[in-house]
Amino acid sequence: MEKVAVLGAGSWGTALAIVLADNGHKVHLWTHREDHAEEINRTHRNERYLKGIPIPDNVIADSELAAVTADTKHVILVVPTKAMREVCQQLIPHLSQQVTITHASKGIEPETYKRVSEVISEEIPAELYRDIVVLSGPSHAEEVSLKHPTTVTVSAKDLNVASTVQDLFINEQFRVYTSPDLVGVELGGALKNIIALGAGISDGLGFGDNAKAALITRGLAEIARLGTSMGANPLTFSGLTGIGDLIVTCTSSHSRNWRAGYKLGQGADLDQVLEDMGMVVEGVRTTKAAYQLSKTQNVDMPITAGIYRVLFEEADPKDVVTQLMTRIRRREMEDLTNILDDQMNN
Amino acid sequence: MEKVAVLGAGSWGTALAIVLADNGHKVHLWTHREDHAEEINRTHRNERYLKGIPIPDNVIADSELAAVTADTKHVILVVPTKAMREVCQQLIPHLSQQVTITHASKGIEPETYKRVSEVISEEIPAELYRDIVVLSGPSHAEEVSLKHPTTVTVSAKDLNVASTVQDLFINEQFRVYTSPDLVGVELGGALKNIIALGAGISDGLGFGDNAKAALITRGLAEIARLGTSMGANPLTFSGLTGIGDLIVTCTSSHSRNWRAGYKLGQGADLDQVLEDMGMVVEGVRTTKAAYQLSKTQNVDMPITAGIYRVLFEEADPKDVVTQLMTRIRRREMEDLTNILDDQMNN
Repeated sequence: MEKVAVLGAGSWGTALAIVLADNGHKVHLWTHREDHAEEINRTHRNERYLKGIPIPDNVIADSELAAVTADTKHVILVVPTKAMREVCQQLIPHLSQQVTITHASKGIEPETYKRVSEVISEEIPAELYRDIVVLSGPSHAEEVSLKHPTTVTVSAKDLNVASTVQDLFINEQFRVYTSPDLVGVELGGALKNIIALGAGISDGLGFGDNAKAALITRGLAEIARLGTSMGANPLTFSGLTGIGDLIVTCTSSHSRNWRAGYKLGQGADLDQVLEDMGMVVEGVRTTKAAYQLSKTQNVDMPITAGIYRVLFEEADPKDVVTQLMTRIRRREMEDLTNILDDQMNN
Repeated sequence: MEKVAVLGAGSWGTALAIVLADNGHKVHLWTHREDHAEEINRTHRNERYLKGIPIPDNVIADSELAAVTADTKHVILVVPTKAMREVCQQLIPHLSQQVTITHASKGIEPETYKRVSEVISEEIPAELYRDIVVLSGPSHAEEVSLKHPTTVTVSAKDLNVASTVQDLFINEQFRVYTSPDLVGVELGGALKNIIALGAGISDGLGFGDNAKAALITRGLAEIARLGTSMGANPLTFSGLTGIGDLIVTCTSSHSRNWRAGYKLGQGADLDQVLEDMGMVVEGVRTTKAAYQLSKTQNVDMPITAGIYRVLFEEADPKDVVTQLMTRIRRREMEDLTNILDDQMNN
């Protein structure tokens, strides 16, 4: 049994803390708000983020990083991509022994276009960690906390380190696999949020399941195209962290990216949607990053461009989705062959 | 404008007849029941199969094949795979000029393992038709009849003939693309029904969205593996007729294969489910065919085998799905690499 530090007490951080606690580990859950930590410890609940779910006694919440990280070999970062650099900087003085850093955040940094593991490696000196591991896959936090069967993938430059994280988390309900494709696992988890926004917009417009399936299919093709251009293995986009995560995010009302899209499709504006939700919607910033990347990488991403126009240029969602449905080339294989060409050239 | 014969007045045949009528064609819709034809012509509705949808005046229902097929260059077959040979035999004496035959049926014949276009080509002498075209994709009949945006793919040995069918059906809401991969388009449409049954079983058991997404992802991998071994282009399974159709079938309560699976997951037995539904559930026979094929083709298909055991060997759905969730190899890439190997060898 290990002492494990989980940084971030949102719904996903709390659900992962519960999995670790179920496996018998001693879990210290960090939240930056002292009153939030006190509430979790007093009620053994995290009502705002995981309504009605009991949190085991071997999860201890704390707002002091020093206490959370003392004597631990495993640090799990589950904070929004936007907060990642700042949390890493706060973490440095508390890393007294070499730790394994795992992150479960799904985003790309706008402007720098960095993946989360790149952001972490830029902020934390290399001598302070063994390796950086990503954990990703089709996994609504609510279902994980209810012990519904779930599969996720872990990846790292050093697969042996990824295996130690696999051992930490795996149990009968929470199945953990390893993949050697760190870039593909990180990009799949981040980029699918763009398509989830699009699926939500289509549903908000009342366009139906046929239109949504077409958007998801074409969306997968274009994020695979971008990912491959950035060094991912194209097959990863056909796996759990690609199409698997995309399906769960696009077809479930649990998904906050889908929900944000749905409200946009119904006519709400972005600021209003973000304010109403009161949670981070990673897909919004990821759309910006992917839109910029599609230009620098010279990759055709019509769905991402359309969603960018809805989010940041006040384009009418109905016009955008209608254009997307009618613009696909007459020969479907032309697009698919382009992907194959991209794959062969990388 | 053309005279077009649509054979089969179920929900999908009727929806396709409405699309053709909207495009200005004169549509003759065949049903083998005289009273059904009379009802459609009298009420301009097909209440049993497409509740509440008005049928345009330029759709004329008829139970006489001679009248339906007179002076037409296009015959659209939308009958269950099981009835395909018999309908083809009945059709032969009425084909006075060379026709283009399009089918929109999603199945594989058990025992013979034939695709629908192979069945048609065995029954109808080659001099009676120009080519056999398949029409497939993510397309619930109900949504098509309501003119929701929908994308489908047509394919044939001769792409020029497929293009004439594209021209016949395409309009602003019903987008039709061509693909050169006849085998992949037919197999994707048929095999996805197996995975839809599995997704329904998982939902019926209450296993949640995470488990369903994992099943769909692994299911896509195994049907792509089988399809590739039979000559399909593996990329087709990443397109509209593969993952697109799979998503729409696995995530919508419109889908009769999903619904059948759902009832099985809730504990009903197969005979009872089929009797209650009163419609053809193509996935049941396709599971049998694919299970047999996986053995002759020596392709590993654990999900198909599990569903086969539930359908035909009274296996407990909960045991089967639990086994499927826990049996995946520890390294996800081992499976994915197998697919890549299969692809490279074909």
